[in-house]
Amino acid sequence: MGVREGSNRLQLLSIASSVCHLPVMASRVALIQGASRGLGLEFCKHILKNKSPAAVIATCRNPDGATELRALADQHPGQVTVLRLDVSREEDIRGAADRVKESFGRLDLIVNSAAMLHPSGKGETSLREVTAQGIISTLTTNTVGPLVMAKYFAPLLQKGGGSFGQQPAEKAKQHSGIIVNITAKVGSIGDNGLGGWYSYRMSKAALNMATRNLSIELGRSRPKVVCVCLHPGTVNTDLSRPYHRNVPKEKLFSTEQSVSALMNIIETLSIEKTGKAYNWDGTELPW
Amino acid sequence: MGVREGSNRLQLLSIASSVCHLPVMASRVALIQGASRGLGLEFCKHILKNKSPAAVIATCRNPDGATELRALADQHPGQVTVLRLDVSREEDIRGAADRVKESFGRLDLIVNSAAMLHPSGKGETSLREVTAQGIISTLTTNTVGPLVMAKYFAPLLQKGGGSFGQQPAEKAKQHSGIIVNITAKVGSIGDNGLGGWYSYRMSKAALNMATRNLSIELGRSRPKVVCVCLHPGTVNTDLSRPYHRNVPKEKLFSTEQSVSALMNIIETLSIEKTGKAYNWDGTELPW
Ligand SMILES: NC(=O)c1ccc[n+]([C@@H]2O[C@H](COP(=O)([O-])OP(=O)(O)OC[C@H]3O[C@@H](n4cnc5c(N)ncnc54)[C@H](OP(=O)(O)O)[C@@H]3O)[C@@H](O)[C@H]2O)c1
Ligand SMILES: NC(=O)c1ccc[n+]([C@@H]2O[C@H](COP(=O)([O-])OP(=O)(O)OC[C@H]3O[C@@H](n4cnc5c(N)ncnc54)[C@H](OP(=O)(O)O)[C@@H]3O)[C@@H](O)[C@H]2O)c1
Repeated sequence: MGVREGSNRLQLLSIASSVCHLPVMASRVALIQGASRGLGLEFCKHILKNKSPAAVIATCRNPDGATELRALADQHPGQVTVLRLDVSREEDIRGAADRVKESFGRLDLIVNSAAMLHPSGKGETSLREVTAQGIISTLTTNTVGPLVMAKYFAPLLQKGGGSFGQQPAEKAKQHSGIIVNITAKVGSIGDNGLGGWYSYRMSKAALNMATRNLSIELGRSRPKVVCVCLHPGTVNTDLSRPYHRNVPKEKLFSTEQSVSALMNIIETLSIEKTGKAYNWDGTELPW
Repeated sequence: MGVREGSNRLQLLSIASSVCHLPVMASRVALIQGASRGLGLEFCKHILKNKSPAAVIATCRNPDGATELRALADQHPGQVTVLRLDVSREEDIRGAADRVKESFGRLDLIVNSAAMLHPSGKGETSLREVTAQGIISTLTTNTVGPLVMAKYFAPLLQKGGGSFGQQPAEKAKQHSGIIVNITAKVGSIGDNGLGGWYSYRMSKAALNMATRNLSIELGRSRPKVVCVCLHPGTVNTDLSRPYHRNVPKEKLFSTEQSVSALMNIIETLSIEKTGKAYNWDGTELPW
């Protein structure tokens, strides 16, 4: 990794940490949105294990029910801040951003992971199953949520230390933060040869557009924020569970495999790579 | 135009038409959604002028306020059926489909035209202007509406006579109806170099995905329905009015110019051309 002025601005909050649970000294601050289960939870585990010293802000809509996440936080005292955030509620997002601003003053990475196939848990197999309410719920969580996250957290990412990704030598091209929106290959319009899954496909196509727009706006700013979409492959989680028996075993990744591949991509990111969608193997996906 | 079995299934409803305003005998039945103003209104005018004998079903959310549309209907007695339909309300769409089924029993063409840039009338120039509610309203009208239209009207399009577009000689490849979703070039993710207009761009990218999905599902069915997105150019309407002074005069089309170009494309459509987005000049747009 290259060097960036300010990347060593460590948060010297450790003095107070044992008293009021403020975060320990961390050179990297990452926020994972949708951290209760699946890939979001795995991103938290991976960062704590492989990117220390790191502070992880893990958001989910029901921290009380997120037992695995709470256990993880207990195993890493002072390193994990769990915040209640329903990504479909703008006021939750605003509130969480205020909390992060107070406690950390900056962010280096956001991963927007929360999503659903459809409120029913299964993608529509035909037009007959499409309902206005189903599409709107899916779009609200999968698409609107990540964009509203960017709205409230962009100022904190612009204060980040740029400690994820690659920093080019040229100062003007260095980035302070990264936004990763977890997309899906089925959200590629050009790649769509099968149809079905109306709500989910539309939500990811619109998320791709939102990410592209973000990359333009936040790529013009100084300091810059890199914005990309990543496809995790087909991963063994609750979301894909109804379809597992149709997936050949070697094509169904564990969350560890997928997140490890995605973090490898994240660590190669720079402003040159912003505004695109990448597959888990690093290849670019068509829109 | 080629020939398709059933394309001469004329609706012999003329006997009753003077009594209870049932439609006159028409070889083509077209439904224009968003017909109160702008391009939607112009589609109605164009079809009545150039595609006779044709029945036009013109839908809008407030027929009482649609004075130009009502005047047009008066000029073409028995040819125009004006239906109240707010495309953001699924029950309106279902009700309109029931009415069309009763009166016509089939459809040859649907044009989904209604859209907004944003509830404020102007696209967002930066992330700060993005709100969850603004995005959701825009998506509901511009994206969810056209797809829910397809849900309720597809069965009528499958009973259509295929009287718009080109019919190939091979029967299995002939189509019974056409869905045209009016998209926008700024909805192309690959073409997006400027950013801004978050809600509108996302709504059109998701509409492109919905159209692609529809083309797959309704291209497999027998009879087939052709589904495309068309970009009308920059057109002198209320929607684009806030930006007219930035557009060179020769690049700002009249609604007549734009609709005439789009109808030329529609008349070349066949199942070979389904599932794509076309510019007003007939060239394909990138996703
Ligand atoms: N698994 C795959 O094969 C696959 C493939 C392609 C893309 N993806 C993408 O990968 C990402 C992660 O999915 P996953 O497989 O890890 O799914 P998952 O195990 O089902 O987890 C989904 C997560 O989203 C959260 N969520 C849902 N609605 C929410 C809301 N309104 N507010 C806040 N959180 C909400 C859930 O929280 P609760 O615990 O509170 O319900 C949960 O943490 C998604 O973006 C998905 O589209 C997955
Ligand atoms: N003009 C351009 O330069 C341009 C460029 C690219 C694409 N387009 C696309 O062309 C299409 C037509 O736009 P236009 O330029 O003709 O715009 P317009 O003159 O502003 O007309 C917009 C139409 O949408 C209707 N509408 C809005 N919300 C609705 C709702 N909830 N339910 C039903 N109808 C609703 C309006 O009805 P009311 O009268 O009831 O408000 C009106 O008929 C749109 O899809 C637009 O995105 C236009």
